[in-house]
Amino acid sequence: MQCQASKLLVTGCWQRARVATQLTSHRKSVSVNSVMASDNPDTNLVPAPLTWREDAYGGCIVDTGRIPSSPTAFRTALTEAIQEWTALGKRGIWLKLLKDQAPLIPMTVELGFDFHHADPGHVMLTLWLPVDAPNTLPPNASHQVGVGALVLNEKGEMLVVQEKNGPLKNRNVWKMPTGLVLAGENLTDAVERELLEETGIFAKFESVLVIRQAHGFAFGKSDLFVLCALKLQPGQNELRIQESEIEAACWMPLDQYRQQSTFKGVLLYEKMVDRCIAFVEGRCKGLSALNLSATLPFSTRNREDLLIFPEDGST
Amino acid sequence: MQCQASKLLVTGCWQRARVATQLTSHRKSVSVNSVMASDNPDTNLVPAPLTWREDAYGGCIVDTGRIPSSPTAFRTALTEAIQEWTALGKRGIWLKLLKDQAPLIPMTVELGFDFHHADPGHVMLTLWLPVDAPNTLPPNASHQVGVGALVLNEKGEMLVVQEKNGPLKNRNVWKMPTGLVLAGENLTDAVERELLEETGIFAKFESVLVIRQAHGFAFGKSDLFVLCALKLQPGQNELRIQESEIEAACWMPLDQYRQQSTFKGVLLYEKMVDRCIAFVEGRCKGLSALNLSATLPFSTRNREDLLIFPEDGST
Repeated sequence: MQCQASKLLVTGCWQRARVATQLTSHRKSVSVNSVMASDNPDTNLVPAPLTWREDAYGGCIVDTGRIPSSPTAFRTALTEAIQEWTALGKRGIWLKLLKDQAPLIPMTVELGFDFHHADPGHVMLTLWLPVDAPNTLPPNASHQVGVGALVLNEKGEMLVVQEKNGPLKNRNVWKMPTGLVLAGENLTDAVERELLEETGIFAKFESVLVIRQAHGFAFGKSDLFVLCALKLQPGQNELRIQESEIEAACWMPLDQYRQQSTFKGVLLYEKMVDRCIAFVEGRCKGLSALNLSATLPFSTRNREDLLIFPEDGST
Repeated sequence: MQCQASKLLVTGCWQRARVATQLTSHRKSVSVNSVMASDNPDTNLVPAPLTWREDAYGGCIVDTGRIPSSPTAFRTALTEAIQEWTALGKRGIWLKLLKDQAPLIPMTVELGFDFHHADPGHVMLTLWLPVDAPNTLPPNASHQVGVGALVLNEKGEMLVVQEKNGPLKNRNVWKMPTGLVLAGENLTDAVERELLEETGIFAKFESVLVIRQAHGFAFGKSDLFVLCALKLQPGQNELRIQESEIEAACWMPLDQYRQQSTFKGVLLYEKMVDRCIAFVEGRCKGLSALNLSATLPFSTRNREDLLIFPEDGST
């Protein structure tokens, strides 16, 4: 019942906006587009109100595509909307502004909004309205996810690289190929992609060996590093290094890899190498990864989920 | 050698800014603070240049604390800085603006910057300068990380909840307690915290049973869900539900849990429940989690890393 009531209210909001637009269009006899933009300096023009819809948490999501582009009209509309949301007992307000709406940011902040997150092309601002309840708006993504590739050739040598940039630059450290998982990318695909980009070598994901969480990485976020074993595909022995990021690449005996001074005495590295060796020696199979299509009963979109798990008898 | 050269150049930049400030201060006989702010409308005042330092990737990080607050002075300073960076062959420029510097955002965008990321209190904008190389600036955090708690009582019943908000609201779905891992928080701590917050029950992290990656979650980012087994601590049987988020909580036989219509026929859920049962029946131990302090040779800061891995013979 509550769900149905919410839907009606949502429809109500959009309808109210449409009615206002129609009235304004009629009065001024101009196109809907130019009225929606509200750029007309004519002060007799009633600015179109903001349109918005409810979310499932008692909050409101403003419709970015119908925000007046004139700062003056926007200020009026946003001020009125805040009064309306407050009267309706709304909680969190979500307001996404595109890059070309940047001139509206200063007054959005002035009216009490704060930054929530941003990505190239837009910034999301939020306003928490309840004065007697703590802000429970969910934070933005908190982790970057990295992958590392353990790849062995037919001699049992490990594929290692030296980086051209970053903290390991000029330190003579040989490391396994690593990279960041992109939003929307399965980590099993990411490790194959990064390996191919950095070294020209194609190998197939086999299993996850170890996962490491650490904090205070880029932009104050946390980091999950997923170390994977990959199986070299036939005929993949020729190294072609990525000029922009990789200084050198080679095949190296595992023992030589772990004897590097950077790793000696650092428990973290020793434990990770230990898991690689357990895998190479067949004492540990690592974790399986399985792709599953899911259509969940409470969602309209199809999902492809990647499930990572230890099998029974995974030794 | 290259590292040392970089350091000298950094020092040079800061020094250049200091000298400029001193000259200006001398000429106008005003305090350094007011000169740095460059709010003085006197057009004879030479605006202080932006100060910045190099990063390890051929880019520059602008010093947020010394940005002129006057939009006019800022525009001049940023325009000059872009010319200088271009002449020096710099790559990515990082410009962080605080909430009270919001009036400077529109012209930063106008001068070619785009949003990179934001968090409450600030927004980060970037500019990629090379015209002949693709933008390789690392993206912001790409994943949210969630945790779920499998907790059994002495009768082997599972602790389940119904949610008050969100997509499962009013669907009569009993689910295990879940929550988001905060940036900076070990996921083993997060699962204990969320369980305690939602149900009033204290249980200790025991092992990771399964990890699920999926895409298109909040704000278009990806999601990693880490399902953990926790061990109920003595005397922890009284449920105190979190009024704001939880509708109901109870102990439920595992078989009744998995017979729920929401989970039936959804391979993803069936496989996850399968791993829970394998753990309960002792067929799979799950993954160990180990906290390791690390002082890495190429970093000055101490780290606490959480390592998650299958033991040898983890069945």
